[in-house]
Amino acid sequence: MSLGMYQSSIPALVRALGNLRQILAKAASHCEAKKIDPAVLIGFRLFPDMLPLASQVRIAGDMAKGSAARLGGLEVPKFEDNETTFAELDARIDKTLAFLATVTPAQIDGSEKRTVTIKTPRGDLNFEGQSYLQFFLLPNVYFHCTTAYNILRHNGVEIGKMDFIGAP
Amino acid sequence: MSLGMYQSSIPALVRALGNLRQILAKAASHCEAKKIDPAVLIGFRLFPDMLPLASQVRIAGDMAKGSAARLGGLEVPKFEDNETTFAELDARIDKTLAFLATVTPAQIDGSEKRTVTIKTPRGDLNFEGQSYLQFFLLPNVYFHCTTAYNILRHNGVEIGKMDFIGAP
Repeated sequence: MSLGMYQSSIPALVRALGNLRQILAKAASHCEAKKIDPAVLIGFRLFPDMLPLASQVRIAGDMAKGSAARLGGLEVPKFEDNETTFAELDARIDKTLAFLATVTPAQIDGSEKRTVTIKTPRGDLNFEGQSYLQFFLLPNVYFHCTTAYNILRHNGVEIGKMDFIGAP
Repeated sequence: MSLGMYQSSIPALVRALGNLRQILAKAASHCEAKKIDPAVLIGFRLFPDMLPLASQVRIAGDMAKGSAARLGGLEVPKFEDNETTFAELDARIDKTLAFLATVTPAQIDGSEKRTVTIKTPRGDLNFEGQSYLQFFLLPNVYFHCTTAYNILRHNGVEIGKMDFIGAP
């Protein structure tokens, strides 16, 4: 294990999405136990112009799989954004993890200087691969996973930070 | 620039805290413009047994400065947890950034295998330095910065994800 571009990205992404999956499973159980319509949580936003839980989950995963394209030059599977149940969100994360499992160190390593351009509403952001990884990809994935966590926590789902962090 | 332990940790931590500082400055301006008592935001929690904004800011910074101790074997300054205003929270981040600026690559690089033990309510977590960095330190700092952001966003402060991510 060393800190090449693969080791610095894919294992952390896999872990973040795996933990998110467990958090969503707890939310699904919570809905069942408390007789809450899961659609209420899946569509919940912390503020009217923030994105709902389903979008937080989708974007976390899309950032993760998109990184393989941006760093490794790989074709990334596109998913429809049509999940409306916890089972469907789980299946989406599962497909994302299955894709990430196909990405190899040989494809990602050496991408430190690769030019990465991200289109945003404020204009293009240009990075070198390493800055993209450290200052855009990882913060973004953790941002959306944490926001998903906070939406659920705000609604009384019994989760704690260690569910987000996961076991060592 | 290469992905040693220093480059993989300190610049990302400095950036996350710098962005948090800008977000808090916007929150302070929001309070002034809308005649909101800043103490309402500083003490706000997304759920009754979650930590308030002040704690999210403190923990993000403490994780960041604690990493220098855990990876570099350095003596880390201790701060009292007594901030009650945005100016005081800003000063705390400022002191944390000033400390991080004194940490050198020579002190942190080579700590990939260093044993790191984290005490948690569920028992000790044992990591090697690299796993600690990737799977505990960075997710934790982003978790607390994002939760601070979500607390403010939930209360109508006009910030967006790019304030959290920062400029490339």
